[in-house]
Amino acid sequence: MSVVTCQLSVSLDGYVAGPDQSRQDPLGRGGLRLHEWLFAADRWREQHGRAGGEPGVDSQVVDEVTRGVGAYVMGRRMFGGGEGAWDESWRGWWGEEPPFRTPVFVLTRHPRRSLPMAGGTEFHFVTDGIRSALEQARAAAGDREVAVAGGASAVRQYLGAGLVDTLQLHIVPVVLGAGEPLFAGLTDLRLEQTRVVAGPTVTHVTYRVLR
Amino acid sequence: MSVVTCQLSVSLDGYVAGPDQSRQDPLGRGGLRLHEWLFAADRWREQHGRAGGEPGVDSQVVDEVTRGVGAYVMGRRMFGGGEGAWDESWRGWWGEEPPFRTPVFVLTRHPRRSLPMAGGTEFHFVTDGIRSALEQARAAAGDREVAVAGGASAVRQYLGAGLVDTLQLHIVPVVLGAGEPLFAGLTDLRLEQTRVVAGPTVTHVTYRVLR
Repeated sequence: MSVVTCQLSVSLDGYVAGPDQSRQDPLGRGGLRLHEWLFAADRWREQHGRAGGEPGVDSQVVDEVTRGVGAYVMGRRMFGGGEGAWDESWRGWWGEEPPFRTPVFVLTRHPRRSLPMAGGTEFHFVTDGIRSALEQARAAAGDREVAVAGGASAVRQYLGAGLVDTLQLHIVPVVLGAGEPLFAGLTDLRLEQTRVVAGPTVTHVTYRVLR
Repeated sequence: MSVVTCQLSVSLDGYVAGPDQSRQDPLGRGGLRLHEWLFAADRWREQHGRAGGEPGVDSQVVDEVTRGVGAYVMGRRMFGGGEGAWDESWRGWWGEEPPFRTPVFVLTRHPRRSLPMAGGTEFHFVTDGIRSALEQARAAAGDREVAVAGGASAVRQYLGAGLVDTLQLHIVPVVLGAGEPLFAGLTDLRLEQTRVVAGPTVTHVTYRVLR
């Protein structure tokens, strides 16, 4: 059965986005700093249709976390914002050729027809909960990984339900002080460090989630 | 002039102690888990007069962070608990032969005579603030390092005042959810990752504090 993975950039105080998140500023105040390492990685830029960037350890990490994925699960805001955006003409904010290139199962309360995009991404909208979305993603992924892509709320739900096998944190030397806390309500989480990769500016640590 | 260092074990959500700290339980609920890697390191055990433990990467880290220190600064609670303990007969909770083996400058509001202990540790009590304690520690350390030993409140004050040169975090795969937050009030902190050491269970990351 598919391994369920999850990887996020996190501040030293455990936030995955800064305070005052909004439609215009989904990463919140200071939150962009969590992703600078990623935006500078040539592999990420290539996946997102942008030129330039740096090769190296961070790019290898990006390559690893995407290469084995056969399907994604994500929250509705990660697909494309708040409830107001849920008419059928709204195609999300990933552009016409999203970087996923696999089936993507979007958690929502609003039924909607599946949405095929260029480049292999197809968004499916799941209204009956996180376990159903995961089952559908597993079926689509075959023996490849299912990645819980985000946002933080979806990740917390999957972690809290014991449905994630490996968690990779990109630990960024930034203090946000407030914002979206990755670990809220997860004091029972038991993790075992399995791998450490030192990037030039951030540290990538992989944990096995113990049951 | 002495380099000023600081090293702490921190949870993934940025706490250096759990909730409900007390004289009986100074690490708070779950806080002991932050230090299991340390208590298992043979070098730490040797420094604290205990047998056994494991050699290896964690022990090397312990050795490195103590070897170069010429003087310590610490808060009063780290010396020996709350204000109630401040009579001259109370010799702190480090035993008759504390592991520091250098001068130790204790931040307090209560003047007290210096307290020489076995093994080279001498506690000095500083009532005129963190800068004064640091100056005295620098003078005592010569060209060796000054280490801000803790607790979290003292560390936050020194970090907030821009007086720390390097911060080493031992990042422990534990979620505490509440307790003593290392980074409270420190959103302006600017850190640059300089070194990553993978221990078997925790990751040791060193940061340069930028001015």
